[in-house]
Amino acid sequence: MRAFDEQNINPNVLATQYAVRGRLVLEANEIDKQIQEALKAGKPNPYPFDKVVYCNIGNPQFCNQPPLTYVRQIISMVEFPPLLDHPEIFPKDLIDHAKTLVKATGCDGTTGAYSHSMGVMGFRKSVCEFIGDRDGDKPSPEDIFITDGASTGIKLIMNVLLSHQRHGIMIPIPQYPLYSATIATLGGTLVPYYLDESKMWATDMESVREMYDKYTKQGTIVKGFVVINPGNPTGQVLTVDNMKEIIEFCYERKLCLMADEVYQENIWSDVPFTSFRKVLHTMRDEVRHGLELISFFSVSKGYYGECGKRGGYFQLENINQFARSQLYKMVSVNLCSNVVGQEVVELICNPPKEGDESFPLYKKEKEEILGSLMRKAKLLANALNECEGISCNPACGALYLFPKIDLPQKFVDECLAQKEKPDEIYCLNMLKKIGVCVVPGSGFEQKEGTYHYRMAFLPPEDQVQKVADSMKKFHNEFMEQYE
Amino acid sequence: MRAFDEQNINPNVLATQYAVRGRLVLEANEIDKQIQEALKAGKPNPYPFDKVVYCNIGNPQFCNQPPLTYVRQIISMVEFPPLLDHPEIFPKDLIDHAKTLVKATGCDGTTGAYSHSMGVMGFRKSVCEFIGDRDGDKPSPEDIFITDGASTGIKLIMNVLLSHQRHGIMIPIPQYPLYSATIATLGGTLVPYYLDESKMWATDMESVREMYDKYTKQGTIVKGFVVINPGNPTGQVLTVDNMKEIIEFCYERKLCLMADEVYQENIWSDVPFTSFRKVLHTMRDEVRHGLELISFFSVSKGYYGECGKRGGYFQLENINQFARSQLYKMVSVNLCSNVVGQEVVELICNPPKEGDESFPLYKKEKEEILGSLMRKAKLLANALNECEGISCNPACGALYLFPKIDLPQKFVDECLAQKEKPDEIYCLNMLKKIGVCVVPGSGFEQKEGTYHYRMAFLPPEDQVQKVADSMKKFHNEFMEQYE
Repeated sequence: MRAFDEQNINPNVLATQYAVRGRLVLEANEIDKQIQEALKAGKPNPYPFDKVVYCNIGNPQFCNQPPLTYVRQIISMVEFPPLLDHPEIFPKDLIDHAKTLVKATGCDGTTGAYSHSMGVMGFRKSVCEFIGDRDGDKPSPEDIFITDGASTGIKLIMNVLLSHQRHGIMIPIPQYPLYSATIATLGGTLVPYYLDESKMWATDMESVREMYDKYTKQGTIVKGFVVINPGNPTGQVLTVDNMKEIIEFCYERKLCLMADEVYQENIWSDVPFTSFRKVLHTMRDEVRHGLELISFFSVSKGYYGECGKRGGYFQLENINQFARSQLYKMVSVNLCSNVVGQEVVELICNPPKEGDESFPLYKKEKEEILGSLMRKAKLLANALNECEGISCNPACGALYLFPKIDLPQKFVDECLAQKEKPDEIYCLNMLKKIGVCVVPGSGFEQKEGTYHYRMAFLPPEDQVQKVADSMKKFHNEFMEQYE
Repeated sequence: MRAFDEQNINPNVLATQYAVRGRLVLEANEIDKQIQEALKAGKPNPYPFDKVVYCNIGNPQFCNQPPLTYVRQIISMVEFPPLLDHPEIFPKDLIDHAKTLVKATGCDGTTGAYSHSMGVMGFRKSVCEFIGDRDGDKPSPEDIFITDGASTGIKLIMNVLLSHQRHGIMIPIPQYPLYSATIATLGGTLVPYYLDESKMWATDMESVREMYDKYTKQGTIVKGFVVINPGNPTGQVLTVDNMKEIIEFCYERKLCLMADEVYQENIWSDVPFTSFRKVLHTMRDEVRHGLELISFFSVSKGYYGECGKRGGYFQLENINQFARSQLYKMVSVNLCSNVVGQEVVELICNPPKEGDESFPLYKKEKEEILGSLMRKAKLLANALNECEGISCNPACGALYLFPKIDLPQKFVDECLAQKEKPDEIYCLNMLKKIGVCVVPGSGFEQKEGTYHYRMAFLPPEDQVQKVADSMKKFHNEFMEQYE
């Protein structure tokens, strides 16, 4: 048997699932290829649409969301410093900002050198200022690890926590599949807790306690607790009271609280985002200084959407010095995260200030992007809720809708008879009929017997009404088939 | 017990070692800090040098090696496409090249969008052309996975291979500690084979067979075989005959051959670099189509040295379709490698061509960098060989010298009595006395009872003679102490 034969592959790798780029996307790529090949060969398009609209993933710039101009201008100057001498192209404040970044990297090669394993010190200081402005008091740069997006940080922390099948981490259901995938790869146990769809996806603390007790009784040693706030795929924004309950729960059971806060600047309702760190700092001393809290951030989301840059950070609260040295060692094996991504982290944490030459354009771009996202979120949720058999909580935050589809029993039975997941087949049908690619709810875990899909509300604004209409039409026709 | 308490941390994480950024570097950072603080406070410098010369790592641009101008010019245009309209700043061929990259990313956001999980298709095609020019026939873009540097690819492959303590991978000793660290983190078994220092670090095939048999008898299931060619830390370049022996060995035992070929453009002697792929393609059919071979490449080395960009790729030969789908799934969990790093991979694989406006400068920069590296390699090796008690094979390839130090027995005994590694203490002494930071041989594994260190020969050329002189002086004084 060879090393890569199926029976020889790490079973934890085999068990890993990641639907966001799974069957639906592979099929979508295949359809796009068929359309292109047909057109090239002068044959008719085999599908009733020109190309697939990818709503499977929060990838805004792929959907024509423009990058922030100041970010790109500064990157271009840092990459090629002779551009610093072109005030006719670049605003003066950005030239100055770029110069501080060049200096912070510590060498003429700027982003060409490996940085400190935790990230460029000057960039980590900007992260601290950003957190300080948000929370009212700032952490130390020693608390900040700049990473290749949030994902690598989350994987690292889970790798430190999980070394045995009995070790568990509590995960909200529905969840973002990075969590289930990472636990599977590491061979640990996913301890689910449920969000309550009927209460706008609030954390069901009863479910939290129940599941913790159930798994603990079965012998699972629970080590961590993941919260995604704002929620992915579910879009809820936690209230401060709910956060306090979660903090108390984790503190009492000595769980590390992993706060995925990457959507903190995507807020679409009246409930403001509050960081777990800020809430923790209001709690009594033993909790404030006792809870191990790690918060994750990414430059891929918000209004910046620089997904391809793979920039992010995690920030430590109450993690002991020994564990920190272990984290340092582990990130050192990979030397450092990509330095352009690090630079984008700095830029997002340190945008143009009022009075700067570049400020008006920055403000305009930010407002346009956030305004457009909010309009699209509402338009699509409304459209879905107009469909019989679909109910969709509004997105209070993040970039996704997660509608529930009441699939006809006959269709469900047909799918199950063929060992197919009903929501996956529904989504595949939608893809083939109208060219809209979403991810079935089964890829995120969902309460048994319920069916959903996740849709990123990112199609360009001039297409979004058409997408909504075609989804409604598809759904109604689909349901009629089974009446 | 809290999740991050020492007793609660994954023991495989605790067992992971990575000396390249270990004790010596932490100490060096501390010294630099002390010097800066003293000078700031108007106190005398507590050390007899101004700052540490970091020779612990192959990080050329940190040591003032300039980036290639064409790489940075194109990155700046792709980041901020309005720069494409500035022919007064950028050569025409580079503007055209940048436009093809913008187009290849498939969106106006260029590097701001997540790409295909395996990397941008257009960039992978350029990698294939590069490999084709090198080997005489080219692979398919489906064989290429663009990664965040070579390290992430190596870790991924090892993760697929290793799922049990009994699973082993053969590693050359001395080795680059990414390999030992990754095996430790994954909880597998490192099966060592030895390079023969007396034969310019040639692969000792007898040791290979012996160690394979020894570990197999003990119950280890060997799955992979790592070759680092040119060698790190040892600098040898394999002959084609030696490569054929290794291929036959792996083929017969069904081992996946992992060829770390990241230094393929750092060649300092008459033995040319030949890729394992090229050699494999000359072998009889069952071997040619039977050996599972994966080759790793990085933009961090060569004459480009873009370490901070974290760009690299791996290329598959004879890996079955099922395993490929598993690799696709695993890289998808992280969405994609950073797209600027991907772009640098494309640029390194597709440099300016003769006749292009940008070609003369590219050629000049490349020749200057490679010439300087070769001069420094020779100067430092000669200097070390002039010291009594040091013998150093010349670097035929890569970026390091790995001198053997015959440490006085009295010193060795003193160190061992204090449970210290003698080579580590020697290197710490050198750091404190002359401010040169190298990595002790124990961090790379070495034959028991021998002592070495690894030195990257990257100090700027105007400093290298001074570094060599100070190292000689330090060593001679050190030896005198123990006479």
